[in-house]
Amino acid sequence: MVKGRLEAFSDGVIAIIITLMALEMKVPHGADLVALRPLFPVFLSYVLSFIYLGIYWNNHHNLLQAVRQVSGRVLWANLHLLFWLSLIPFVTGWMGENQFAATPVALYGVVLLFAAIAYFILTQAFVADHGKDSPLASALGKDSKGKASMVFYTLAIPLAFINSWLACTFYALVAVMWMVPDRRIEGKLIR
Amino acid sequence: MVKGRLEAFSDGVIAIIITLMALEMKVPHGADLVALRPLFPVFLSYVLSFIYLGIYWNNHHNLLQAVRQVSGRVLWANLHLLFWLSLIPFVTGWMGENQFAATPVALYGVVLLFAAIAYFILTQAFVADHGKDSPLASALGKDSKGKASMVFYTLAIPLAFINSWLACTFYALVAVMWMVPDRRIEGKLIR
Amino acid sequence: MVKGRLEAFSDGVIAIIITLMALEMKVPHGADLVALRPLFPVFLSYVLSFIYLGIYWNNHHNLLQAVRQVSGRVLWANLHLLFWLSLIPFVTGWMGENQFAATPVALYGVVLLFAAIAYFILTQAFVADHGKDSPLASALGKDSKGKASMVFYTLAIPLAFINSWLACTFYALVAVMWMVPDRRIEGKLIR
Amino acid sequence: MVKGRLEAFSDGVIAIIITLMALEMKVPHGADLVALRPLFPVFLSYVLSFIYLGIYWNNHHNLLQAVRQVSGRVLWANLHLLFWLSLIPFVTGWMGENQFAATPVALYGVVLLFAAIAYFILTQAFVADHGKDSPLASALGKDSKGKASMVFYTLAIPLAFINSWLACTFYALVAVMWMVPDRRIEGKLIR
Repeated sequence: MVKGRLEAFSDGVIAIIITLMALEMKVPHGADLVALRPLFPVFLSYVLSFIYLGIYWNNHHNLLQAVRQVSGRVLWANLHLLFWLSLIPFVTGWMGENQFAATPVALYGVVLLFAAIAYFILTQAFVADHGKDSPLASALGKDSKGKASMVFYTLAIPLAFINSWLACTFYALVAVMWMVPDRRIEGKLIR
Repeated sequence: MVKGRLEAFSDGVIAIIITLMALEMKVPHGADLVALRPLFPVFLSYVLSFIYLGIYWNNHHNLLQAVRQVSGRVLWANLHLLFWLSLIPFVTGWMGENQFAATPVALYGVVLLFAAIAYFILTQAFVADHGKDSPLASALGKDSKGKASMVFYTLAIPLAFINSWLACTFYALVAVMWMVPDRRIEGKLIR
Repeated sequence: MVKGRLEAFSDGVIAIIITLMALEMKVPHGADLVALRPLFPVFLSYVLSFIYLGIYWNNHHNLLQAVRQVSGRVLWANLHLLFWLSLIPFVTGWMGENQFAATPVALYGVVLLFAAIAYFILTQAFVADHGKDSPLASALGKDSKGKASMVFYTLAIPLAFINSWLACTFYALVAVMWMVPDRRIEGKLIR
Repeated sequence: MVKGRLEAFSDGVIAIIITLMALEMKVPHGADLVALRPLFPVFLSYVLSFIYLGIYWNNHHNLLQAVRQVSGRVLWANLHLLFWLSLIPFVTGWMGENQFAATPVALYGVVLLFAAIAYFILTQAFVADHGKDSPLASALGKDSKGKASMVFYTLAIPLAFINSWLACTFYALVAVMWMVPDRRIEGKLIR
């Protein structure tokens, strides 16, 4: 019951964030393809953020599968994650409208980094409730993907000021890393 | 459980898309019927897209009825479908605000075509999980409606540059084809 | 299962409509109470529409309680109702921004009338599926409130051009009529 | 069933309100950090309101845990609470865009006060349905936090005209008071 409502609320927020991002693509005034051209970077940033939110929804979904109980601490850790995800439409729009300029690309990485930290805190809150020997804790394992992501974001943020497209490549690589299924390697992994 | 959350998330996204489209009809400044006149094509495009999203929700709903298991592949195929559906408010607004001009009408068809392809990929992902001899696979049948839709969209896209209203008639015909119930003909069809 | 998803989708759409309406109240530029004054009619129209959507959610909720099966016809009748409800934010904003001028107030009534008709069609679709002797049909009863509402809307629409505040009084009276509980009079009424 | 739908609808509305607030932070035109500076108070007001909505979601969630039945009175008391919560994005945006000026900060407190009163009415509606000796009523207890919140808001509203930052400190203190878990003191408290 409690778990169901946590899932439903998180699903609702992620569904709304995903859909609101599409609104950043304002309908242009012209009626030809030329009118669409300035929207292309906005579209590109939308695709990247859509994939990221899809990854978070997928991972959240897999994580909750192994959850047996939900504490007050977990409710707040989950809201903390949703807070950082709710900032994604803003940084996506800022990055897209400025053709992937240095500062917006760096700030995009900052929000991704804080979302990753918030997700890590959420998993630790679950482990604290279920115990270090619980199936949930062992399924989470070393969480090498999560740690690698945070390293990549931390590298990409200063990199954005040297070459913002290289920083974006880092973000895209992290996304690809999460989309590739790896269950055979780490067993029944909770992503 | 897994299936329930997939449904809830998809319902959430489709519900938000449908409602956000209505926002494209910006409140006009005048207070008489003349002030509403420029909104008429926007309203018309809204009605068409509302029906299309209703069809997708209906079909998604019927499809999920026959589903027994949900894999990681299916989660991504479903997100891919939602991605194309999330672009519908943008093309609806662009088409409506330009009085059904050629390029916006063609792009509307492109988004409908990719949404139809994404739906086809989703059904194939389910068939791959459930087996070719499963009730789900046999209920899907030849999927003649799905194939006919894709043919119509492919014809309508170039047609938009010759006569955009004819292209819109194609879109409307496909919608009518899906709304007419055909269970008696093909048995317990999953649309 | 089917019924649950119909409820969840309808709840989602109504929840989004209610919340989007609040967005019509654009944040004013000044920081004093005088800056809020032009927003007062917008706020008033928001309150009225919030109550109407609350009534629809309540009635939809009570109706679904007695439902045992959901057909394809019902899915479309429900989408038809949601379509008219989705137009409420537009007419609410138009009415509020024009200080309850005649045409917007009349159009508001038109949308309320079509929503009431759509609700009536939905109840008839349920009765057709459950049978005229079903508990659902007898609980719906004569539906005197529904019929009275349609009469009031039909009177209010032309009245708006004579005195728009009188028409609004009619809308408010209908809302009050639905909010007053009447279970003792008509037994276990499905509103 | 009834309770589930009440929860789902409330979750939907709160999820949408939380996400729409993030939209108040309009993407700035410049691409450097200086362009973000005017957004800082808007961001600060967003953080405060996000926490308040998180508290309401948490408390609503805990309250519904102990609920056994849902009456028509409760449905309207719940809608009344959602009405005041739906005004939070407006006052948040107004407060943030005016750098926490006196009148917007006072109005923010008025909305918080009415939301607190609406929450109190909701709890009383549940107590009236479940009886004064029910586990729900005893779990609610003296509701000292709820009463203290109302006192703080009432003090903060006039205080905003003397020192608006002091009023904001009051709002922040109330939020902290709710976030600190106090189950050990009052037993199995329903917040």
